[in-house]
Amino acid sequence: MNHYVYEFAEGGREMAGLLGGKGANLAEMTRLGLPVPPGFTVTTKACRTFLATGAEPPELGSEVARALTSLEKTCGRALGRTDDPLLLSVRSGGRYSMPGMMETILDIGLCDATVTGLAKASGQERFAWDSYRRLLQMFGHTVMGVDSGLFEQAITDLKAARGVGDDLALDTGDLALLTGQFKTLIHRETGEEFPQDPVDQLHRAIRAVFASWNGERARIYRRREHIPDDLGTAVTVQAMVFGNLGRDSGTGVAFTRDPATGERGVYGDYLPDAQGEDVVSGVRTAVPLAELKRLAPDMYLQLGDHLRALERHYRDLCDVEFTIERGKLWILQTRVGKRTAEAAFRIAYDLLKERLIDRREALARVSGGDLTRLMFPRFSASATDAPLAKGIAASPGAAVGAVVFDSAAAVRRAAAGEPTILVRHETTPDDLPGMLAAQAVLTSRGGKTSHAAVVARGMGKVCVCGAESLTVDPVGRSFTTDSGVVVREGDTISVDGTSGTVHLGALPLTRSDVTRALESGQSSGPLATAVLHALAHADAVRRLEVRANADTPEDAARARRLGAQGIGLCRTEHMFLGERKSLVQAMILADHASARDSALAALLPPQRADFTAILEAMDGLPVTVRLLDPPLHEFLPDHTRLAVHVATAANPEPRDVQLLAAVERMHERDPMLGLRGVRLALAIPGLVAMQVRAIAEAVAQRLRDGGSPRAEIMIPLVGTVEELRLVRAEAEAVLAQVATETGQSIHCPIGTMIELPRAALTAGRIAGAADFFSFGTNDLTQTTWGLSRDDAEASFFPGYLDKGIFPASPFETLDEEGVGRLVTIAVEEGRAADPHLVTGVCGEHGGDPKSIHFFHRAGLDYVSCSPFRVPAARLEAGRAALAAAP
Amino acid sequence: MNHYVYEFAEGGREMAGLLGGKGANLAEMTRLGLPVPPGFTVTTKACRTFLATGAEPPELGSEVARALTSLEKTCGRALGRTDDPLLLSVRSGGRYSMPGMMETILDIGLCDATVTGLAKASGQERFAWDSYRRLLQMFGHTVMGVDSGLFEQAITDLKAARGVGDDLALDTGDLALLTGQFKTLIHRETGEEFPQDPVDQLHRAIRAVFASWNGERARIYRRREHIPDDLGTAVTVQAMVFGNLGRDSGTGVAFTRDPATGERGVYGDYLPDAQGEDVVSGVRTAVPLAELKRLAPDMYLQLGDHLRALERHYRDLCDVEFTIERGKLWILQTRVGKRTAEAAFRIAYDLLKERLIDRREALARVSGGDLTRLMFPRFSASATDAPLAKGIAASPGAAVGAVVFDSAAAVRRAAAGEPTILVRHETTPDDLPGMLAAQAVLTSRGGKTSHAAVVARGMGKVCVCGAESLTVDPVGRSFTTDSGVVVREGDTISVDGTSGTVHLGALPLTRSDVTRALESGQSSGPLATAVLHALAHADAVRRLEVRANADTPEDAARARRLGAQGIGLCRTEHMFLGERKSLVQAMILADHASARDSALAALLPPQRADFTAILEAMDGLPVTVRLLDPPLHEFLPDHTRLAVHVATAANPEPRDVQLLAAVERMHERDPMLGLRGVRLALAIPGLVAMQVRAIAEAVAQRLRDGGSPRAEIMIPLVGTVEELRLVRAEAEAVLAQVATETGQSIHCPIGTMIELPRAALTAGRIAGAADFFSFGTNDLTQTTWGLSRDDAEASFFPGYLDKGIFPASPFETLDEEGVGRLVTIAVEEGRAADPHLVTGVCGEHGGDPKSIHFFHRAGLDYVSCSPFRVPAARLEAGRAALAAAP
Repeated sequence: MNHYVYEFAEGGREMAGLLGGKGANLAEMTRLGLPVPPGFTVTTKACRTFLATGAEPPELGSEVARALTSLEKTCGRALGRTDDPLLLSVRSGGRYSMPGMMETILDIGLCDATVTGLAKASGQERFAWDSYRRLLQMFGHTVMGVDSGLFEQAITDLKAARGVGDDLALDTGDLALLTGQFKTLIHRETGEEFPQDPVDQLHRAIRAVFASWNGERARIYRRREHIPDDLGTAVTVQAMVFGNLGRDSGTGVAFTRDPATGERGVYGDYLPDAQGEDVVSGVRTAVPLAELKRLAPDMYLQLGDHLRALERHYRDLCDVEFTIERGKLWILQTRVGKRTAEAAFRIAYDLLKERLIDRREALARVSGGDLTRLMFPRFSASATDAPLAKGIAASPGAAVGAVVFDSAAAVRRAAAGEPTILVRHETTPDDLPGMLAAQAVLTSRGGKTSHAAVVARGMGKVCVCGAESLTVDPVGRSFTTDSGVVVREGDTISVDGTSGTVHLGALPLTRSDVTRALESGQSSGPLATAVLHALAHADAVRRLEVRANADTPEDAARARRLGAQGIGLCRTEHMFLGERKSLVQAMILADHASARDSALAALLPPQRADFTAILEAMDGLPVTVRLLDPPLHEFLPDHTRLAVHVATAANPEPRDVQLLAAVERMHERDPMLGLRGVRLALAIPGLVAMQVRAIAEAVAQRLRDGGSPRAEIMIPLVGTVEELRLVRAEAEAVLAQVATETGQSIHCPIGTMIELPRAALTAGRIAGAADFFSFGTNDLTQTTWGLSRDDAEASFFPGYLDKGIFPASPFETLDEEGVGRLVTIAVEEGRAADPHLVTGVCGEHGGDPKSIHFFHRAGLDYVSCSPFRVPAARLEAGRAALAAAP
Repeated sequence: MNHYVYEFAEGGREMAGLLGGKGANLAEMTRLGLPVPPGFTVTTKACRTFLATGAEPPELGSEVARALTSLEKTCGRALGRTDDPLLLSVRSGGRYSMPGMMETILDIGLCDATVTGLAKASGQERFAWDSYRRLLQMFGHTVMGVDSGLFEQAITDLKAARGVGDDLALDTGDLALLTGQFKTLIHRETGEEFPQDPVDQLHRAIRAVFASWNGERARIYRRREHIPDDLGTAVTVQAMVFGNLGRDSGTGVAFTRDPATGERGVYGDYLPDAQGEDVVSGVRTAVPLAELKRLAPDMYLQLGDHLRALERHYRDLCDVEFTIERGKLWILQTRVGKRTAEAAFRIAYDLLKERLIDRREALARVSGGDLTRLMFPRFSASATDAPLAKGIAASPGAAVGAVVFDSAAAVRRAAAGEPTILVRHETTPDDLPGMLAAQAVLTSRGGKTSHAAVVARGMGKVCVCGAESLTVDPVGRSFTTDSGVVVREGDTISVDGTSGTVHLGALPLTRSDVTRALESGQSSGPLATAVLHALAHADAVRRLEVRANADTPEDAARARRLGAQGIGLCRTEHMFLGERKSLVQAMILADHASARDSALAALLPPQRADFTAILEAMDGLPVTVRLLDPPLHEFLPDHTRLAVHVATAANPEPRDVQLLAAVERMHERDPMLGLRGVRLALAIPGLVAMQVRAIAEAVAQRLRDGGSPRAEIMIPLVGTVEELRLVRAEAEAVLAQVATETGQSIHCPIGTMIELPRAALTAGRIAGAADFFSFGTNDLTQTTWGLSRDDAEASFFPGYLDKGIFPASPFETLDEEGVGRLVTIAVEEGRAADPHLVTGVCGEHGGDPKSIHFFHRAGLDYVSCSPFRVPAARLEAGRAALAAAP
């Protein structure tokens, strides 16, 4: 026999799938003996039947009748009893929280025959008519489909007629008049009378809640949140209790600990003589819960007991809604409470010390996202003025500095010790020195994955991008807001990368204690202690190594302080910028081999110096150097700008004309899919040899200096093993030659990035020529989806996220189904071909918590991410190991 | 016991893996009783041992000695016998032909002690010394590693001293002198004497041939031809016979049928009193084989008998090398002969009629590539002058016309009945009307897969692209060749898309009889009969349907005449060009919904008219319409050109300024990976509705007119099923609405292109919302490899093909290992989710013979290709079915 209705006493917390989260927790509290208004829950299964067949299951009527009889008996009241009627709330509640997406109907049971009974029983006539008015309004709209605006209009009209501005100013007579108007309205709009039979009301309300599962709002929400469409909602039917029956009544919300800081002690708000809706509507202001201690000490004590019982039972911070009805405390709802990042760490650590949870569970209760949030500096006070602009919160944290409009100015002022904010339309690789020098980057164009955003996140720099209301004038060295404020170079602004806002002047800043503790290993307070404790446990249990993406000795050193176990990605292109750019241009423009060779020869010493310094900073740990990857025209000027310059110049410089010709010759329609990565290595004679020589000579130098250099050479953008074989052979020859020249024993593993679908699909063959695979999940995502990060962010991504087509940007969280399948194929087939193959990931996803769990399950050896994200990655790698363990 | 040496009598044709192609065929002929000079073959296995260990297998010496003894007995001569020495040839020969890539050494056995014996035995002293000189030269270079230039220099010096220009003018004394010089040279260069022991010579020659397997030339060749590196070569040792011993001697090549036309009858060349090398070196001109009938009728008769025996035995055209030594005919080599496309069809058909082969084998003997070659018009005479230029033979055939430099001129002249050749730097979608109007397209930039090449191949238009020696001046309306010839608009040129050459003036043209026969179904001669017969058989056995990619009623009608069973890809973007482009621009520039809606409304009637006409041309057959796919900026002017125009204009037009702003707003770094395909459908409200309405109304119109329209709607660039679900729902709503409006029953299957790796990897889910999959293998190749067709062709493709990294361009022949794996995954998982799923391919590969075989094996339902390639696709689909059948 199907069982479609569960009284609260029959259910429990573990039944959330069948009873919904709300119903399951009410049952759990009932089981615990807490004072829960009695009721029952109609299961999600009944809902599914209703949605499939359009009708309630045949047994439902009798099951509801039975549960209702039981409820009436418990309450000592009956539905429809004219002298003291039982009133019911009918609420939705699915397995996953969908706040506000489905329907609720209160005060079921009121009708012409019972409203006066309620008035008498409660002794409050106005309350009774107001409740009836509310029922007509909710039921008329939700169940009978009347436009809710019509009810609102009737209320507005009446208030106008009475010359009052507040609903509270309407008296009993007014409310009785309104109920009459509402009934007429319902009949006029639907051709049907409002049902006076309370049991009929109840069943129609249950069906309306069922149907609201498929309401448009709910469907869009589910698509966006990726909640399956076929779960259905449960319906909880519960006796109404009222907090608005006088000074001995009230309603409130309570937490078992402070959800903002995690500190122990009861926190919350209380509103005397009010219903829950009044708290939400904000008509009246609540008082701190401590006030209840003064107003009703026994109630406060009772509540405290219940909260402690719930926390012990749930072994976590609980969040409770309660109502006091004429001196009787009722718990209406509970759930595990949301909390800030700080509270998450402190509560987990405290509960561990209180022995309510073990280390394993404590680690499960915190997250890398929380940790990262705690690492940013922040504004210690909020601005009083309106922000200058609002953009996309692309890289969190807070920064204050003088506005500059180009990289050179940022570098110059930084050298003089002045903090700066780099403001650009959008950034390019040319802006890197300035981005490094500045405290924050602000752009008027580009999305969350624009160059500015990605690079800033990588550097752990504050970034607000796409602040489209700003008109940036780099030539005039100023920007203008949409309200006409002009900010000039040198003016001070404050940029909040967490909220996306920009403010004029300097807001006060606080550096993160957590970051200081992580870098020093020294705790400086309870929060830092909790964080270090969680990280120590994560380090002890994780299998994934955590390396950093770092291109400079400074980044390498910082990454190491933050716990990185090596460098998983050292990009050499950043070493080709600045003053060396002219050498790179000479290499590109070379029209014969000797010109190219001398350009390459000039690049060798600085490259070698770079590698020597990085190997020193990471002494004893692996440093994976990626050979030159980006298309060469990234080292040349912008085509259109140069063409306009040459066309409009009175006497264009010969070098500009020559450059323009080169730019046009090398123009690519889709540079991301053009001459880059290993293709460059195969197309430009001498390039690989120069880079490998620089690495090998740096290794030899470090060996001579008594170090333990562990350089690894990584070939990007390989699509077929043939490419790797050819470049590998060339690299090995150079390594052997430098070994002979220097008399040092030079061993560098040579591996490849797996960043093209074809590389993943032929990983078994590629493994035959690779010592390691490093998944370049940024490019792999771009090619697997056929979308360019930059272009997609600028055009259709927002719409896609909005329509729920993506659960999250696939550039932030790895798309397991598509890209992840390729990663799995490559790991399995690569390992099958070479059991000693080392596998890691060096794309942005290496620092993303959800993605790290996937990489753990996929069996990778390490993740590599920006230095700033290393602690979070360590934490998530530990959590992933525990989550995957049986 | 290993068996490393096979006498000819011990082997056979089936042993090509062990004995190489040459050794196996010699054994086969020996077995057939043909007069083959006796010999033996050292196996590839011996070679592999040698290459692995650096030494001959220990047993090899005794096995060679035994075979040599047997050979000497058969010949009645002995190696090293001073009075009548046996001479040997030592030749390489692997399983796969690698012409000229490995070594050959002739005249082994000559030494100081035997040279005079040879002179006496042959009665020709000069011949003996010349042979010795040749041995020293070949052996010295090949076995002993002396620079061959040194030998050549000695000969040149001697000729200069003698005052003669020709080797033949050197007399016996000169040649004896040279042998002395050569021996000195060898000793000087190697510190070693030329070995006087013939057995030593033989073994060293065998080892040198073994070693030549790993010579650089051979390795590069193998990489390019994708021949495995570990096969090794066999070595064939054979008694020398000489065709240069007087007027009763000679050498020649013979074919069992005419390899040019396929006509029956013996064909070939004969050179009296000469060796094989003399034929190759071209010092003397051969005479037609028929001449032998006059010179030596009995030899001719014998040869004829042997040729007939070989053809009966091999059941195919054979190609034979023979030598007549003093009235004795020897067959030196045979193989199945290469032939032209015409010969392939005629020979297969004739052999079938002669009952030498069955229908199945006849079909296996011809190919789609052959058929396509026969369909092009061609120049009936070759040019006498040097070509104006040479470019990439991008789309074959021949065309003559007046030079034009823009699309409008081509259209204008075509309207006046004048054939034209469109000459551009490179083409863009704007040039389509001109490309359609012109006879041929000639570009100075771009590779085999540039826009010009791809579109021209699609249209079956002649195209030569990347003729880089031409300087095209579209403004001055002329182009200039590197030799300074200036060709102006209106001048006549001839373009040969088969050879890639461009000629001044009009070369005489011939239309293809085969094409005429295919379109009419009427044979006009033996070739057309053979082709139609092969196609009829292919049609009878193939499983794959063949559809065409066609965007106009004219193309559709032509495709149908050529046997297309529907349209697999009807691109709607071509319908957005020409006069309608301004409407598209209006849609793009619309800054509010109503402007966009009215632009879309204006596009509806012409779209509907397009579809109505195409559905009429394909009445009763499916027409798959792809919704708008390309990035919108393809409908806008080029960014740089417009920016320069606006920057340099005295008073730029407001519309240009507005357009420039739109272009900049919509600029994408990688448009291929940007806002296109289904992303457009989701981003531009009303676009899908307009296109689907146009299709639905066209279907309704055709139904009213009594037709059988079978439109299908195809959504491009889907990456996730969510995209397809949303667009499908919108399309279905429009279909239902038009059905209601028109009262017609409108059923259009809705499917998707699988052209992103992610679509293939999640095909099981996508199949839940698709009625069909059409593999867009062009884009799928681009994204799987992460390379842009246009950019790659322009930069690194030539190097890649040259280095053997690609076996063939993956845009011409499907990359089975990478892209093919995705196709297989998608077909399997799509079918598992929906057994009724229809699957096809509409990328360029749909017309590629090798790829069609793969698509057959992958289980697709149809291929779709350009109309011109439909007959070849039908043929290959039939061949694929036979090849895959057990």
